Amino acid sequence: MLTQPTLLLDKNKCLANIERMALKAKKANVTFRPHFKTHQSAEIGSWFRDYEVDCITVSSVQMAVYFADNGWTDITIAFPANILEWATINELASRINLNIVVESVEAIQYLEKHLTNPVGTYIKTDTGYGRTGIAAEDYDTMQRLLKELKSCKNLIFIGFLCHAGHTYNVQSKDEILNIMASSRQQLLALKTFMANDFPLIQISYGDTPSCSVSDNFEGFDEIRPGNCVFYDDMQAHIGSCQQNDIAVALACPVVAKHPERLEVIVHGGAVHLSKDALCINKQKHFGTVLPLENGLWHTNQPLGYMAKVSQEHGTIKMPRASYDKVKIGDMLAILPVHSCLTANLMKAYRSTDGDRFTMMP
Amino acid sequence: MLTQPTLLLDKNKCLANIERMALKAKKANVTFRPHFKTHQSAEIGSWFRDYEVDCITVSSVQMAVYFADNGWTDITIAFPANILEWATINELASRINLNIVVESVEAIQYLEKHLTNPVGTYIKTDTGYGRTGIAAEDYDTMQRLLKELKSCKNLIFIGFLCHAGHTYNVQSKDEILNIMASSRQQLLALKTFMANDFPLIQISYGDTPSCSVSDNFEGFDEIRPGNCVFYDDMQAHIGSCQQNDIAVALACPVVAKHPERLEVIVHGGAVHLSKDALCINKQKHFGTVLPLENGLWHTNQPLGYMAKVSQEHGTIKMPRASYDKVKIGDMLAILPVHSCLTANLMKAYRSTDGDRFTMMP
Repeated sequence: MLTQPTLLLDKNKCLANIERMALKAKKANVTFRPHFKTHQSAEIGSWFRDYEVDCITVSSVQMAVYFADNGWTDITIAFPANILEWATINELASRINLNIVVESVEAIQYLEKHLTNPVGTYIKTDTGYGRTGIAAEDYDTMQRLLKELKSCKNLIFIGFLCHAGHTYNVQSKDEILNIMASSRQQLLALKTFMANDFPLIQISYGDTPSCSVSDNFEGFDEIRPGNCVFYDDMQAHIGSCQQNDIAVALACPVVAKHPERLEVIVHGGAVHLSKDALCINKQKHFGTVLPLENGLWHTNQPLGYMAKVSQEHGTIKMPRASYDKVKIGDMLAILPVHSCLTANLMKAYRSTDGDRFTMMP
Repeated sequence: MLTQPTLLLDKNKCLANIERMALKAKKANVTFRPHFKTHQSAEIGSWFRDYEVDCITVSSVQMAVYFADNGWTDITIAFPANILEWATINELASRINLNIVVESVEAIQYLEKHLTNPVGTYIKTDTGYGRTGIAAEDYDTMQRLLKELKSCKNLIFIGFLCHAGHTYNVQSKDEILNIMASSRQQLLALKTFMANDFPLIQISYGDTPSCSVSDNFEGFDEIRPGNCVFYDDMQAHIGSCQQNDIAVALACPVVAKHPERLEVIVHGGAVHLSKDALCINKQKHFGTVLPLENGLWHTNQPLGYMAKVSQEHGTIKMPRASYDKVKIGDMLAILPVHSCLTANLMKAYRSTDGDRFTMMP
C-alpha cells in the first residue's frame, strides 16, 4: 500500500515510448543513442536492449561509470568534458568505447596531454539554443578546434554534436520543426565546409521534442532523445506527446483541504517534483493532478493542477466538483512537469506491477 | 582535490550560526527547537547538542525516524499529519516524545482511532502565509478542532504551531518585523480566547527570517528556525543574514567559456542547486559566484551570478574583469539560493577541513 510520496512507473507506457522511438530511428536508418540521464536506472536501461539499442548517452562522468559498470560498452558523455575528471575518463576509455564532447582548445590540449587511451571526440555545436557549444556558423573557431584535434593521438575526432534545446521554449509542432530544419541546415553546411579535410564527419542530434514530432532525420547519423522514455507535462504542453504517454507519476497523500480557496495540500513538494514549472494562462503549473486507482492513473479525468510547491508541501487547485470528491488520506497522482528532475530527486521507481527499481546512487 | 560538483560546508560559519540562534533563544527564555530539514544530517545535528539543544523539528515522518534512530528523543513533525503513516507515527511515539500537527477533524478522528501511544498535538495555525493551517482568526474551526481533541486519549493537545513563511516574500527587516508582530498578535488573541478551556496552551513559532532579524520572542514558548544553520543567498537577499554567514557553497568546475556573451559554463545545475531562484533587477539569479581558494570561498570579491540552470549545466554571467580571470578547469564556489533544496539534492557535505558528512538516505 502506498503511504508516502512515491514515484510510480507504468512499464507498459514506458516500453511503448521506447519502442516508438527505436522503430522510428530504425526506419530512418539512424542510430538510436538514447540519453539515460532521464531514468538513471540500470534496470530501465536494460529494457532498451530489446529494441536493439547498444549505445547510450549520459550527462556526467559519474553516470558513465554507473552504466559502464552495468554492462554498457558504448557511451557518449554529452556534456563539455570536465578536464579535472581526466583520470576517470581515461580509466573508462580503457574498458569501453567512450565518446566525449569538447568545445575549447584548452580542454583538447589538456586531455590530449593526460589521456593514454583513445576517446571518440565530438565538438559541441550550438545551432541557436545559446546554452553552450561553438556556434555552428562560427567556422573560424571550428577550424581552430579541428586543427587542434587533427594533431591529437588520443582524441579521435568523430563529428558535431548538437542539442537543440530551444525546442523546449516553443509550443507548437511547426515551431519545433522549424528549429529542427534550421539546425539541420547549419550542421550540414558545416559538415560540407569541412568535408575536404574530414570526409567522415558524423552528426549527432538530440532533443525529445524534435525527435518526437518529426520522423525526418535526414542528415543525422544518430539521435539522442532521452526524456521520451517517460515524457512529462512539459512535453505534452509543447506537443511532443499526449498526456496519456507519460509513463511516470508521483503518488502523493492528501494531508489537508482548504474549502474557502478550493485548495488541497499534499505531501509532495520541491524535494519530490523539483521546482520546474510551466506557465499556463499566466499561472505557474507544477503538474497535472489525476485520480489514482489501484496504482494506475487516468488522464481523461484531471482533478486539478499543482499550483505551488515548497520543500515538502504541494498546493493543488481544483474546481469544486473535483474538490468535493477528494478526501484526506487519498493518494493522488501528479504528472511531473519535468520527469528527469523528478526521477533524480526520487531515486527509485515503483512499477505499477509492484516492482521497485533503483537508480544510480 | 575537488574534481566534480561538491557541496562544501564551512563548519566554523555553521557553528557560529547555531550558537547565535541558541544564545538568542536562551536570552529570551524560549525553547530552541531547530528545524533539521535543512541539513538532514545526523552529524551536523549532533553539533546542536553543544548548545543545549535537545528537541528538534522535522518535516516528514521518514525524517523523524532517521533522527530518532540517531538519538533524538523529542521531535515535532511540523507538517500536517499524514494519516496513511499512522503505523510509523505510532511506532515512533512508543519510543520518543513525538509531536504532530493536525488541522482537520478527519485527521484527528482517524489518528485517535488508530494510535495506541500518546502523541503531543499542535493545531497548524495560519497567520497570513496562506499555504496551509487553520486561519488564526477562524475561531469557529479552531473550537471544532479543540472540542475533538478534548475527547482524545492519544492526541494530547499542546497548542498552536505557526510558520510565518510570508516573511520570505519581503525584502526588508521592517517588513519581516511587521509580519512577526501581526503573527504574534493573532496567536496571542487566539490563546487568550481559548484560555478558559485550555489554560496551558503553548505557542510554537518558526521561520528563519523572523527569528534572525528579531530578538523579541515575547509570547512564544518555542522557536523553530531551520535554514539559519546554513543560510543562503535568499536569506541574505531578504536581510536575515550577511552573505559571509552562509555556511555552504557548491564547488563547480568550469567546463566552457563564451567570450562573446561573457558567460562561463560550469558543471552545476538543477540536479545540484535546484531551480529555486531569486529575481534581482528583473533577472533570475540562481546563486552568487565566488572564487574558491584552498576549499574556502570569499564573499568580498564576487565573480558574477548564476543566471541559468538546466539539468547539469550552470550558466554564469560575469563582468569582463572577472571573466578574464577564470580558466577552464577552475573550481568556483556558488552560494545557493536555497540551501535546504541544494543540500537535499547533494546528499553529502565536504567540510572545509576535508571531512565528509552524509545525510539521511
